[in-house]
Amino acid sequence: MSPRPQPRIETSMGTLTVDTITVRGRNLVDDLMGNIDAASLFFLEVTGRLPEEAENKLLNAMIVAIAEHGMMPSVIAARLTIFGAPESFQGAVASGLLGAGDVFVGPTSNVARILQVEAAEFEGSPAEKAEKIVDKYQQQGRRIPGLGHPHHPVDPRSEKLLAMQRELGAPRAHTDLMLAIHKAACDRRGKHLTFNAVAAVGAIASDIGIDWRAVRGIGLVARTIGLIGHVFEELNRPSAQAIWNLVEENSDYSDPQGA
Amino acid sequence: MSPRPQPRIETSMGTLTVDTITVRGRNLVDDLMGNIDAASLFFLEVTGRLPEEAENKLLNAMIVAIAEHGMMPSVIAARLTIFGAPESFQGAVASGLLGAGDVFVGPTSNVARILQVEAAEFEGSPAEKAEKIVDKYQQQGRRIPGLGHPHHPVDPRSEKLLAMQRELGAPRAHTDLMLAIHKAACDRRGKHLTFNAVAAVGAIASDIGIDWRAVRGIGLVARTIGLIGHVFEELNRPSAQAIWNLVEENSDYSDPQGA
Amino acid sequence: MSPRPQPRIETSMGTLTVDTITVRGRNLVDDLMGNIDAASLFFLEVTGRLPEEAENKLLNAMIVAIAEHGMMPSVIAARLTIFGAPESFQGAVASGLLGAGDVFVGPTSNVARILQVEAAEFEGSPAEKAEKIVDKYQQQGRRIPGLGHPHHPVDPRSEKLLAMQRELGAPRAHTDLMLAIHKAACDRRGKHLTFNAVAAVGAIASDIGIDWRAVRGIGLVARTIGLIGHVFEELNRPSAQAIWNLVEENSDYSDPQGA
Amino acid sequence: MSPRPQPRIETSMGTLTVDTITVRGRNLVDDLMGNIDAASLFFLEVTGRLPEEAENKLLNAMIVAIAEHGMMPSVIAARLTIFGAPESFQGAVASGLLGAGDVFVGPTSNVARILQVEAAEFEGSPAEKAEKIVDKYQQQGRRIPGLGHPHHPVDPRSEKLLAMQRELGAPRAHTDLMLAIHKAACDRRGKHLTFNAVAAVGAIASDIGIDWRAVRGIGLVARTIGLIGHVFEELNRPSAQAIWNLVEENSDYSDPQGA
Repeated sequence: MSPRPQPRIETSMGTLTVDTITVRGRNLVDDLMGNIDAASLFFLEVTGRLPEEAENKLLNAMIVAIAEHGMMPSVIAARLTIFGAPESFQGAVASGLLGAGDVFVGPTSNVARILQVEAAEFEGSPAEKAEKIVDKYQQQGRRIPGLGHPHHPVDPRSEKLLAMQRELGAPRAHTDLMLAIHKAACDRRGKHLTFNAVAAVGAIASDIGIDWRAVRGIGLVARTIGLIGHVFEELNRPSAQAIWNLVEENSDYSDPQGA
Repeated sequence: MSPRPQPRIETSMGTLTVDTITVRGRNLVDDLMGNIDAASLFFLEVTGRLPEEAENKLLNAMIVAIAEHGMMPSVIAARLTIFGAPESFQGAVASGLLGAGDVFVGPTSNVARILQVEAAEFEGSPAEKAEKIVDKYQQQGRRIPGLGHPHHPVDPRSEKLLAMQRELGAPRAHTDLMLAIHKAACDRRGKHLTFNAVAAVGAIASDIGIDWRAVRGIGLVARTIGLIGHVFEELNRPSAQAIWNLVEENSDYSDPQGA
Repeated sequence: MSPRPQPRIETSMGTLTVDTITVRGRNLVDDLMGNIDAASLFFLEVTGRLPEEAENKLLNAMIVAIAEHGMMPSVIAARLTIFGAPESFQGAVASGLLGAGDVFVGPTSNVARILQVEAAEFEGSPAEKAEKIVDKYQQQGRRIPGLGHPHHPVDPRSEKLLAMQRELGAPRAHTDLMLAIHKAACDRRGKHLTFNAVAAVGAIASDIGIDWRAVRGIGLVARTIGLIGHVFEELNRPSAQAIWNLVEENSDYSDPQGA
Repeated sequence: MSPRPQPRIETSMGTLTVDTITVRGRNLVDDLMGNIDAASLFFLEVTGRLPEEAENKLLNAMIVAIAEHGMMPSVIAARLTIFGAPESFQGAVASGLLGAGDVFVGPTSNVARILQVEAAEFEGSPAEKAEKIVDKYQQQGRRIPGLGHPHHPVDPRSEKLLAMQRELGAPRAHTDLMLAIHKAACDRRGKHLTFNAVAAVGAIASDIGIDWRAVRGIGLVARTIGLIGHVFEELNRPSAQAIWNLVEENSDYSDPQGA
């Protein structure tokens, strides 16, 4: 085969030379280590700039809000995985992370998509845009993500995030639109819907400049932290055998139909 | 089957009630959100307490140090995964995380294990313990993790972390032991070995009270952040097709022997 | 908390008693081991019945058709993963499997969905239904999965599968519909489109009675087999370092815009 | 950077040209499709040759033996994963596969390693080698994999596999050695130990020529098949919410010590 031109790969994430590690245009050792926290690094990774103080505080609060809620499905999966594969801590974390999909974590990106992308289809004030978005979802028979909760009229995590945003004087155009959507949806449904943490994270993440597709990254960082905690606890105080027994004892087998 | 007592599952990670989310003994909304950063939450998850300021700074610096180094193997894997499965951001991150195993991230836990567990087998001063540990590894024909680098006599990330530790006046018993091990290993080998970032992270994480098995969690948080950045860049500026072409064009197929 | 009734879990997959392992209504040891092959077990798992001989032959041919194609993206990902985590063979296979998503493997389920679900929206002969399906996709601006190929007018794997189906005298209503869709799409586009392996697998799997959502399972079994082969070769003849070097040498870093 | 010679990647797995797909030295369409089953393809992938009939029968029986046992930990993990990420069938399968590690699937490779590698350290008849291997494990305080079962003196899957091997007149040097190891271990312990399916698979896989490191691939293929069945059932008859409820209701939270 005669030599063909090799395709080139373009990246702005980072690079190494003999002397220097560069991360997103910064010198890793001189500019970043000791000067920024983990959340700021996440912010730098997905926006290309460092967060201002209010952005950093809000981002950290969002990560903290959604990292740990006890024995959730992804945590149970990770505990069962380390039980079968104790040699692979990362495998257990990964198995839990794989459940951070369209049901629990993805909706934060869907909220952000409405605010960053779909809202641009419409004109008018936030209240007018909100009406049109609620119309559109109603016509398509789709639920607006971030609204509603099985048990709670108020999600205290949302209240806290919204209060922080106000106190910090942070930009809030996307949040105002999401609140207007919330109001329009409650009016339309004729009942109160919870403005839940998914709505707050999707909106505030949009206001601090995170692209809608990267918003679910907030949940992935948060879940990784929570999963590491649970996998480590599982190593010290195993529960997987008890979980397995519970499931077996509460399972009823029947032959497949027509078998 | 007559009802058997259900096995109970014990956890100290977190729990939900109708009104409250508890994370590691704290009220999530009142005590944690707005008060702690993501790294502190990681620390709380794996130690059960909140970090002091110096501990927090060192932990953040360690996460920042090992999160992003450009086109590394796990990053390439994640980019190839999102190429085939664009519907699953978390799947791409998980595929990259699966490579954070015994070669790159695991050794930080191995360093911490030497300092937290293996060192207790021996008595004496740090220098004496270090000699005995180096003896043991030499007799077993094993390399001590964290020492050596293909190109660099000095790892600037280690230098920075050690300097921060000194300036912050943080506890450093484990770090001193690791430095003594480093000295003993260099003397024994008759040549300079780099005290690399694996050694610094394993030692400093031990000094801030992170159990050796959880030390690799620092790398998992860091890699998750870096992987999210790369997967997001891949969505905006795809490289996977170019990577695939490169590998195909530089691959030579031969029939299996005896086929 | 007063005892609440435990939720029950219903399954027809399998169960263990002190004496017997039951798989889908069969005794594992007496009925299945020695009597059925791996593909028949897959068929039993997803349909609840054992395949007839023609169904078995077609299923095996489909698995063989899509398991191994050399240095594909998912294979490269798996090789890079075992490089970083040699302790976890299953982690490397899983990392490759994570790329078996909507781009390469999922489309077989999408073809089957058209044939099993979407076609029921329309009435008439296969040719008439085909016209209406092509209309619908055209109006929605969507490509019909399984049609087209960057290089080949004919996909020899499809030809082989279709020939086997004819020779075996197997049911072919779904395949006939897919061929009619192919004809209608070619006519509409005014050019020949390849009837590729995705189309053949989606159609023939439908004809042997596999639910459209389980059709992608054929690709997952196939890929698992191929991935195991590559991960094992990687252990014997490592390529990951060369892949990494290739990618690094062909990558161009630039600072992020506005950084 | 002046152009450097690109590293080359060597493979014997497969390759594509404009006209032909080659898999392990065979023409995929002409030689393999329609002629071999999925298990034979697995065999070809990891050995480079096609299995003889007895080898094929034994391999299929081993896959069938270990694929499906109802509500096992990896299956529960996969069900919880599809609950959170219904968009990713492959992610759920991968999350279950990640638990196929050192506890359940890996031991088949460990048995094979004893027979293929460790046994070569010793000389003498099978009975003599067996004694020395049992000595070695006893001195190292290690359990020999494949021996023992919590409830059953006899594993009917092992009995079936051994009977098939005899009836097929297949080679059995490794199996004879494993049976001798079993006898020696029972004598040494003064009690009967079950010769379980792990022992049978590790030994018979060795006798049909599968390298010990690839033996765990048999379990990975088997588990993939079983996991696909369970994930598909979960889509039709969801159990994840019930599993989650069960675990939550049977969990007791306590604050971390010293928190």
